[in-house]
Amino acid sequence: MAEIRQEFIEQAEKIGRSCEILPGGVMELAQKLQYSHDNHKPLRIKLGMDPTRPDLHLGHTVVMRKLREFQKLGHKIVLIVGGATAMVGDPSGKSETRPALTKEQVDANAATYFEQISKVIDVTDVEVTNNADWLHKLSFMDMLKLASNVTVAQMMTRDDFAKRYSEGKPIAIHEFFYPLMQAYDSYEIDADIEFGGTDQRFNTLLGRDIQTAYGRKYPQLVMLLPLLEGTDGVVKMSKSYPEHCISLTDSANDMFGKVMSIPDTLILKYYELLTDLENNEIKKVHDDLENNACNPRDLKLRLAHIITEEYHGKEGADKAQEAFINVVSNKGIPDDIPEYKLVESQNILDLLLELKFIQSKGEGKRLIQGGGVKFEGEKVAEPTFLVENEGILQAGKRKFAKVVR
Amino acid sequence: MAEIRQEFIEQAEKIGRSCEILPGGVMELAQKLQYSHDNHKPLRIKLGMDPTRPDLHLGHTVVMRKLREFQKLGHKIVLIVGGATAMVGDPSGKSETRPALTKEQVDANAATYFEQISKVIDVTDVEVTNNADWLHKLSFMDMLKLASNVTVAQMMTRDDFAKRYSEGKPIAIHEFFYPLMQAYDSYEIDADIEFGGTDQRFNTLLGRDIQTAYGRKYPQLVMLLPLLEGTDGVVKMSKSYPEHCISLTDSANDMFGKVMSIPDTLILKYYELLTDLENNEIKKVHDDLENNACNPRDLKLRLAHIITEEYHGKEGADKAQEAFINVVSNKGIPDDIPEYKLVESQNILDLLLELKFIQSKGEGKRLIQGGGVKFEGEKVAEPTFLVENEGILQAGKRKFAKVVR
Repeated sequence: MAEIRQEFIEQAEKIGRSCEILPGGVMELAQKLQYSHDNHKPLRIKLGMDPTRPDLHLGHTVVMRKLREFQKLGHKIVLIVGGATAMVGDPSGKSETRPALTKEQVDANAATYFEQISKVIDVTDVEVTNNADWLHKLSFMDMLKLASNVTVAQMMTRDDFAKRYSEGKPIAIHEFFYPLMQAYDSYEIDADIEFGGTDQRFNTLLGRDIQTAYGRKYPQLVMLLPLLEGTDGVVKMSKSYPEHCISLTDSANDMFGKVMSIPDTLILKYYELLTDLENNEIKKVHDDLENNACNPRDLKLRLAHIITEEYHGKEGADKAQEAFINVVSNKGIPDDIPEYKLVESQNILDLLLELKFIQSKGEGKRLIQGGGVKFEGEKVAEPTFLVENEGILQAGKRKFAKVVR
Repeated sequence: MAEIRQEFIEQAEKIGRSCEILPGGVMELAQKLQYSHDNHKPLRIKLGMDPTRPDLHLGHTVVMRKLREFQKLGHKIVLIVGGATAMVGDPSGKSETRPALTKEQVDANAATYFEQISKVIDVTDVEVTNNADWLHKLSFMDMLKLASNVTVAQMMTRDDFAKRYSEGKPIAIHEFFYPLMQAYDSYEIDADIEFGGTDQRFNTLLGRDIQTAYGRKYPQLVMLLPLLEGTDGVVKMSKSYPEHCISLTDSANDMFGKVMSIPDTLILKYYELLTDLENNEIKKVHDDLENNACNPRDLKLRLAHIITEEYHGKEGADKAQEAFINVVSNKGIPDDIPEYKLVESQNILDLLLELKFIQSKGEGKRLIQGGGVKFEGEKVAEPTFLVENEGILQAGKRKFAKVVR
């Protein structure tokens, strides 16, 4: 193998930032990049899409931004729509969390997903595949051959299986096939690199093993990225916690405000995972935080602007920043808030619902219990509260309305 | 459900002798027998054949004798040649104990097997099927659906899996499919009853579960038979221990002599599992042994005659009994033994090989080390021993030759 040139070491260090690269570390990535360059063979980067959950948030973009970096270097993103997996669902019919989808549902979800990822990567240059095309063709013998490559003990090292097994929760045998199918995909699309969250360590490394078992000489490299916490800084960003989740479809003001709400401990990680800054700039953010060399609020303002600009353009980000600063200087109340004309006294929950500040009365009750609803600056204590006069209504941190008669 | 009539209770008690009947016990068998009779629907009795090991011994006949009893009552034996399973072998190619067979090998072994079982059951009235006909047609989705019916924890209750897992020995995922395939066979052939050794408890009960999961209202009954020990009374009868294994192709003299060599503790079990005696006669054997009411040797002579007669006819059994008694009265040397003409001094191992008393020199050495070779009544101490004079050569208990010049 030729000596690895500095150019590719630097490429690998930039693109591999924050990644755990398995099994060989950053030098193996540099080697792949150089080999690809010297032989005019773009690397094939695998991106698996789960078509049962098409809604994307910033957590999903962590991997997609890496793909974009590869794309900019001339490599090829191979998107796998998990049609086979989705159409299987839970074949026992017991699980509600894994409903079987029809081909039409898969296609519709894939279209939504495609539109959303287009906000990050150049979808005109993506190779789109569907694993139903090869998995549904596997015969009885093919399936057994695939399964013969992994032992039960190996499978049980997977975190979720180990946990469920030790807790006495059932694991149906067919579930072993989900990681096997994902791994087999790597063989079918001839992947050179597979990204995943750290919770995908088992599945992505299994892809390597299956490629090797099926005769591939240089199996895929695995690049694991840390999971991104939501704006509370504690739990992994997820649609299950909408108040801490920054969705790609959030308005500019919401996006900006949510980024501003992250704890200082997350600033560096968000810079690392959600911006394209060069490594030396990232290091400066790190050092500034370390040495208290600047106000964390300023670092967050810059971060919020970078992120918001990406999805709403410079103008959108500028306006969102202006609105945010107004809210703060204006005792927390934005300049431009909707008015609500009160015809007669109204229950607070009904009012919040009508303003679409909440999705359900249950959500409203929880918000009130948590002290998250204010009228004229006073916390609303009971869900039976009646709004009878004019005043400013606030729900959560960023939703306001002016009640008028 | 109609009241069960005495006639069918008696049938069930005879045919269910020595069996563990799951899940309902002997009354459930009686119920099935009565329902079948009243509705003129013969019961379908499953018999699975492993085409990788076509050689049969008395251990295999324990189940086959039961099948014959069902056959005599007008029920239907459905033989499943495990073509799918055999052609899979070990798909990883790592196991030498499970070689993949070609279709031709499967067919040839099935023919041998068929000829051997014809010694016990009426093969002209057997429905012959091959599970390759349905298993090879299972699609990707079918396989996952099948696998979804069992959990890992259930699978790990299977004795051999539990043992290997706890010992850290690998279990490949595809191995989970062997019991699943066997169980699925029960659904495909619509089995009413499946027999098995006690080591088949998991697999046979899984057949019930799979039938139920696939919509069968009255799933199969499971009848478990104890494993038959070889003539040493310790280890399960198996070709791996040829000296304790009574093969269906053994000569009448060998068969008779081997039965006579069983320990007294096995007499009752052999009567129960290897003869058609009525339950009251079996009880008499039990009582005679219990009360020392007769010489165990006489019980064994009767047993050896019954068993030998089954495979070699009455005349064959009579002659074998006569020969056995001659050996005993003649200080252990039979009347009619082959002569070997000694031309020059000969090494004992070469001589044993030429007489076909042993298959290899290794076997000869072990026999000599165990004191199993005698010349003129004296144990041969060394494999280098030279036979130089006339005399009686004995190898093991029943092989003799007269060395002459």
